[in-house]
Amino acid sequence: MSHRGKDFTSIIQKTEADFRSLLGVGEEYDVTFLQGGGTGMFAGVPMNLSGGSSGTPAYLSTGTWTIKAIKEAKKYCSPATVASIDLKEDASAKSFLDRASWSLPSSAPYFYYCANETIGGLEVSRDHIGNLGETPVVCDMSSNIMSRPVDVSKFGAIYAGAQKNMGPAGLTVLVLRKDLKGKAMPITPSVMDWTVMGDAKSVLNTPPTYAIYMAGLVYDWVKEHGGVAGMEEASKRKSALLYNALDKSDFYSTIVPEATGLRSRMNVTFTTPSADLDAKFVAEATAKGMIALKGHRTVGGLRASLYNAVSEDSVAALVDFMTAFEQQNSQ
Amino acid sequence: MSHRGKDFTSIIQKTEADFRSLLGVGEEYDVTFLQGGGTGMFAGVPMNLSGGSSGTPAYLSTGTWTIKAIKEAKKYCSPATVASIDLKEDASAKSFLDRASWSLPSSAPYFYYCANETIGGLEVSRDHIGNLGETPVVCDMSSNIMSRPVDVSKFGAIYAGAQKNMGPAGLTVLVLRKDLKGKAMPITPSVMDWTVMGDAKSVLNTPPTYAIYMAGLVYDWVKEHGGVAGMEEASKRKSALLYNALDKSDFYSTIVPEATGLRSRMNVTFTTPSADLDAKFVAEATAKGMIALKGHRTVGGLRASLYNAVSEDSVAALVDFMTAFEQQNSQ
Repeated sequence: MSHRGKDFTSIIQKTEADFRSLLGVGEEYDVTFLQGGGTGMFAGVPMNLSGGSSGTPAYLSTGTWTIKAIKEAKKYCSPATVASIDLKEDASAKSFLDRASWSLPSSAPYFYYCANETIGGLEVSRDHIGNLGETPVVCDMSSNIMSRPVDVSKFGAIYAGAQKNMGPAGLTVLVLRKDLKGKAMPITPSVMDWTVMGDAKSVLNTPPTYAIYMAGLVYDWVKEHGGVAGMEEASKRKSALLYNALDKSDFYSTIVPEATGLRSRMNVTFTTPSADLDAKFVAEATAKGMIALKGHRTVGGLRASLYNAVSEDSVAALVDFMTAFEQQNSQ
Repeated sequence: MSHRGKDFTSIIQKTEADFRSLLGVGEEYDVTFLQGGGTGMFAGVPMNLSGGSSGTPAYLSTGTWTIKAIKEAKKYCSPATVASIDLKEDASAKSFLDRASWSLPSSAPYFYYCANETIGGLEVSRDHIGNLGETPVVCDMSSNIMSRPVDVSKFGAIYAGAQKNMGPAGLTVLVLRKDLKGKAMPITPSVMDWTVMGDAKSVLNTPPTYAIYMAGLVYDWVKEHGGVAGMEEASKRKSALLYNALDKSDFYSTIVPEATGLRSRMNVTFTTPSADLDAKFVAEATAKGMIALKGHRTVGGLRASLYNAVSEDSVAALVDFMTAFEQQNSQ
């Protein structure tokens, strides 16, 4: 099957149309299917939007993924960190929410943030960012796209790796406001040039055809389950079930205090009273078929990821297991 | 399933081991799974090996894909075209094979060629290139990898998009001699930095997990069918069947003369006496379930692609159809 033939053209067009319909993406935006994941986009964003070495884009640092994005951006421009969060210091979360404390560069080519930090378990909504005037807002939605409605008109660019809520790894979806096209640095590889790839309707070269087909099937599934509004309701119920269990327990501790308003609905991070008990928790949960509960290798602890594919029954089963584990392991 | 967990680690390790075993890739080479396809590599090669703007790598131009590679390389360095083939001019094919006529730059950081041009139907073996001393040879094997044994020791780097002979689109495999690591230009995106990606064992970020799994299944299939030697024998039989039918016909014309020694075993390009008959041929073949016989949109005519997945029975059926079509449409 050729990627330019009728069969695949109808697949990719339907996939794009369903993505646009689900997220409410208008014709003033290109939707382009790319490769390279978030890490590729850490370079792609400044290559396409920073204007090069003299550009000073603004980055809101909320953890590992933004820190990586800033580091990569330094290859191409002079990114400025406007604020950062350290959850070990309560004060930083408070100042983070205080827009007046941000050090915004005067002429940033864009303002960048990550909508959900999977490692810390922090979710930032567009409302947290507020009004930035003419500065285009660029958002990494890799780990929470399709889990809530988005007012796309408030963004210059949105991107997301598919692998959390949209399909298999190897596909990256870009939403780009068309007036931001044509700004790529001359050294931008064609496959990372958003204007070239967008104008070619995602088929400048062979795209990740099967991953696009699979994403289309996931979009069908999201539509059948109430669209992104349905996903949002489910994600609220699932995360509330887990956070409530954590908050009323003296055994478990959450990493992100409720007062920050930044608790992720996608990744709930927590600990037992000790690293040994964390390890025991993971082992016993795994034996019961509840997998991938270990915290990210860089921070340890525990983490339950509640992506769209995780059912409410699964979360209830986890809470039951947690209650039993607490009873068996409390002093 | 985490891309760093035991399950996927065993998948990617087995896939890499089988690839190494099938092609005979020794420990002096990294094998890395990347994204972005050949078009990504058109930038990746000069970013990683040219040394930047003053570098003058040598390119052997055999058609569309090399011309695109040269154009992209100009973003990063000063590529030199050592020879080019125009099949409309018999002389150029002869001079192409005459190494003495090549204009090799004195200190090329690498010599680049494409092992199989899918559009023209031209296949270039490493033997055509000859001895280039210390200059590393870089080869795009996207469309003929796994179809013949390769003496990997004669290459500095080999790359191939998976989608012809190795699995679904969205995976690019790189073979890189380790002494060529550490030369990337500072503006190289991490996902295209062969040293960074190789040192991270292909999991700097989430790799195209499902495509890697599928490639592993294809490698199993190749092993069950005699390895790359078995694939070579089958490709010789399949292409000989078709070229013999074309050569003995006055109705069909092949694009690549046998005398060039460059006929592709993967893509057999030919024409009927007219563009109208070409279109009729495609329509009638398609009705019989023989699809994708139209020549590439940039050159027209007809093309039969005989990748590893195409059976000898399919080629025999095509030849039978061609004979009948000739009888029905000859004057």
